[in-house]
Amino acid sequence: MALAAGRRVPARALLRAGARLGRTQATAGGGDGARRFANHRVLVEPDAAAGVAVMKLRNPPVNSLSLELLTELVIGLEKLENDKTFRGVILTSDRPGVFSAGLDLTEMCGRNPAHYAEYWKAVQELWLRLYPSSLVLVAAINGASPAGGCLMSLTCDYRVLADNPKYVIGLNETLLGIVAPFWFRDSLVNTIGHRASERALQLGLLFSPAEALQVGMVDQVVPEDQVQSTALSVMSRWMAIPDHARQLTKIMMRKATVDHMIKQREADLQNFVNFISRDSIQKSLQVYLEKLKQKKG
Amino acid sequence: MALAAGRRVPARALLRAGARLGRTQATAGGGDGARRFANHRVLVEPDAAAGVAVMKLRNPPVNSLSLELLTELVIGLEKLENDKTFRGVILTSDRPGVFSAGLDLTEMCGRNPAHYAEYWKAVQELWLRLYPSSLVLVAAINGASPAGGCLMSLTCDYRVLADNPKYVIGLNETLLGIVAPFWFRDSLVNTIGHRASERALQLGLLFSPAEALQVGMVDQVVPEDQVQSTALSVMSRWMAIPDHARQLTKIMMRKATVDHMIKQREADLQNFVNFISRDSIQKSLQVYLEKLKQKKG
Amino acid sequence: MALAAGRRVPARALLRAGARLGRTQATAGGGDGARRFANHRVLVEPDAAAGVAVMKLRNPPVNSLSLELLTELVIGLEKLENDKTFRGVILTSDRPGVFSAGLDLTEMCGRNPAHYAEYWKAVQELWLRLYPSSLVLVAAINGASPAGGCLMSLTCDYRVLADNPKYVIGLNETLLGIVAPFWFRDSLVNTIGHRASERALQLGLLFSPAEALQVGMVDQVVPEDQVQSTALSVMSRWMAIPDHARQLTKIMMRKATVDHMIKQREADLQNFVNFISRDSIQKSLQVYLEKLKQKKG
Repeated sequence: MALAAGRRVPARALLRAGARLGRTQATAGGGDGARRFANHRVLVEPDAAAGVAVMKLRNPPVNSLSLELLTELVIGLEKLENDKTFRGVILTSDRPGVFSAGLDLTEMCGRNPAHYAEYWKAVQELWLRLYPSSLVLVAAINGASPAGGCLMSLTCDYRVLADNPKYVIGLNETLLGIVAPFWFRDSLVNTIGHRASERALQLGLLFSPAEALQVGMVDQVVPEDQVQSTALSVMSRWMAIPDHARQLTKIMMRKATVDHMIKQREADLQNFVNFISRDSIQKSLQVYLEKLKQKKG
Repeated sequence: MALAAGRRVPARALLRAGARLGRTQATAGGGDGARRFANHRVLVEPDAAAGVAVMKLRNPPVNSLSLELLTELVIGLEKLENDKTFRGVILTSDRPGVFSAGLDLTEMCGRNPAHYAEYWKAVQELWLRLYPSSLVLVAAINGASPAGGCLMSLTCDYRVLADNPKYVIGLNETLLGIVAPFWFRDSLVNTIGHRASERALQLGLLFSPAEALQVGMVDQVVPEDQVQSTALSVMSRWMAIPDHARQLTKIMMRKATVDHMIKQREADLQNFVNFISRDSIQKSLQVYLEKLKQKKG
Repeated sequence: MALAAGRRVPARALLRAGARLGRTQATAGGGDGARRFANHRVLVEPDAAAGVAVMKLRNPPVNSLSLELLTELVIGLEKLENDKTFRGVILTSDRPGVFSAGLDLTEMCGRNPAHYAEYWKAVQELWLRLYPSSLVLVAAINGASPAGGCLMSLTCDYRVLADNPKYVIGLNETLLGIVAPFWFRDSLVNTIGHRASERALQLGLLFSPAEALQVGMVDQVVPEDQVQSTALSVMSRWMAIPDHARQLTKIMMRKATVDHMIKQREADLQNFVNFISRDSIQKSLQVYLEKLKQKKG
């Protein structure tokens, strides 16, 4: 299999996620009472009859994975997982254009080691909640999905991407001078194989929809206005399989990867805190964030 | 690589294999004396000059892998493996239309734990005989090949599938509410990779010939009347390689998978017996088989 | 993914590498002083400004990997790796038509065990120098690349192959009755996956450029006169990535494979020496080399 040439976007664009410092909780639960229960950053639209909930990220401007958003996601997922009414979750963005810009750099810059540790634990927690989830998870990727945004979609059982050339997807950490952790790698290798991962991770490739489909990063590319309906139709197909057999099969496929992560979890946490606390890394991030603030000031 | 949409057939169709309870040994060794030695359920057509034997499954109506058939297959393979005359075996069905419908549900239903254990040991034994075989194994898949039928073909060195849309192939265990054992998974992952396996196993996908080719489940799809000749021509190519080097190379590729299975063999046996002995599983199977009998009554 | 039918070339053609017994050191460092420093068998063209060096194999007639060439390659690579001026190396042949014919059979025939051990250590050393190299390695494959030639290219980060049907590439060891060592296998599996490797290694497949691209053995196929320029352009893209992040990512992808090889290194050496010292193997090789000498005499 020959790889499509990946595409890179300016690293700056990828950092907008973390650029809004001192953001306040602007959005509140929205809308039609009985059918929705909303937290601050995650809108959950449950369809109890179908057994499916749609989780919509809404953390303006670019759904960066702040500590707050991570925490709400984990709690929301846990709730759904424990509620026997629900067997499937569709992950999507409340703001078409950006699925999620990934980790929030403001959580990694100018804070203390205890904060870095708390933040990284939350990132780990989200992956540990998603990757072996007993729910059917379908990603309805209705926007750009770099780094942590891509990771979230990789944990799902199926990925539907909107056919818009701006909606790039990939683990582009090297472009920022950082390295994706081993469990990001494992999620990617399990999806697109060793060679494609080696190239994509080293080059920090962000794939266009056509490239993402070719390399296997997503399962389907559809017109933008059909992402949600396709996700629902895929979901109904997955839900037609007897739950118990499907769940055991999923665990059989993912257990080794999860076990390895859990075993290395503490070391991974220490690595992150040590790395991000380095003066050189902090300086790069500060310069970066400062530039973004000036740009918008 | 984007996966072709797999196709599912009604689970009922897949169970016909086990639906003929109390089947008697109807067929006997057939035909042209010197060129064939036939057991009850496996017809072996040896071509000593070429060093190739064709093994044809004939266990009407759908070549389900009964304990009897499994035993004959293992003995037949062992015989050929120990006979230096033979370097290659073509596995096919004596009854075009069905390669093999897979495991025989009547062996797993309404019997006692000792019988379940005996049956499962025979299934394990067949895989252990096929997967690391020093013979060149070519599957000439001239019919539908679900579950255990698919597994047999996955153990071969090369798979030729007849181009008939009815001849679906895949590990569709979840459709029956059961879970493929880890060594079925390993055989599949080694063939089509992790992601494609994850999806195929969870959804219990049965691939059409075109889809099977695209995902890598088979190596070649040819018109139905060319399956045997293609298999023979493939065989001659594989047999052109010095045996010793080819065998060592094959073992190098498959040893880790085989060793892992052998190490887990007892645990796998216990798992199967415990699982299949559950009241809930037995009830499902009984209801199922009863329906099939009524249908034919 | 269905594999393209691989192509085989007469084993004799592959052995020409080792057929020139008693070869003298015919070629010397060539040319334009300041820009080149040449050893006997490897021509290095450094571009300090760009941070890239081009290493050209020139071991007539077919760039077979003699002990001398291996030693010079390892020393040359070590030098570049320790010289902070250089961040990337392009591996190519000084003699378009043959990238490298692979291991030198004259080093494995008619010598004593101590020589075999010395030779094999050098082969191991080259792989250990290349596979986890912190340099960006791009293979500009401007000729046939069987066996050890293929292995060298597999260790690179990117492979560009000239579009000439004579320029076949693959690990064709079984055609000579020998078996690729496990670390050749690992390099291949990490590149084209398990199933394609299983088939390619057993059949000793040599892929045409189109087939090599399809199976993922190379990343790009370009007209013959664009191999070097394409390699340079690929190199500049890889060098645009922050070095430290790229290197850590590369190690993360390759460490397990390298660690496994180092752990088994001594056993692998013993295996090779025992295998190659066998009378039967020595006789085959002698007959072979004798035939080639007569052919040319």
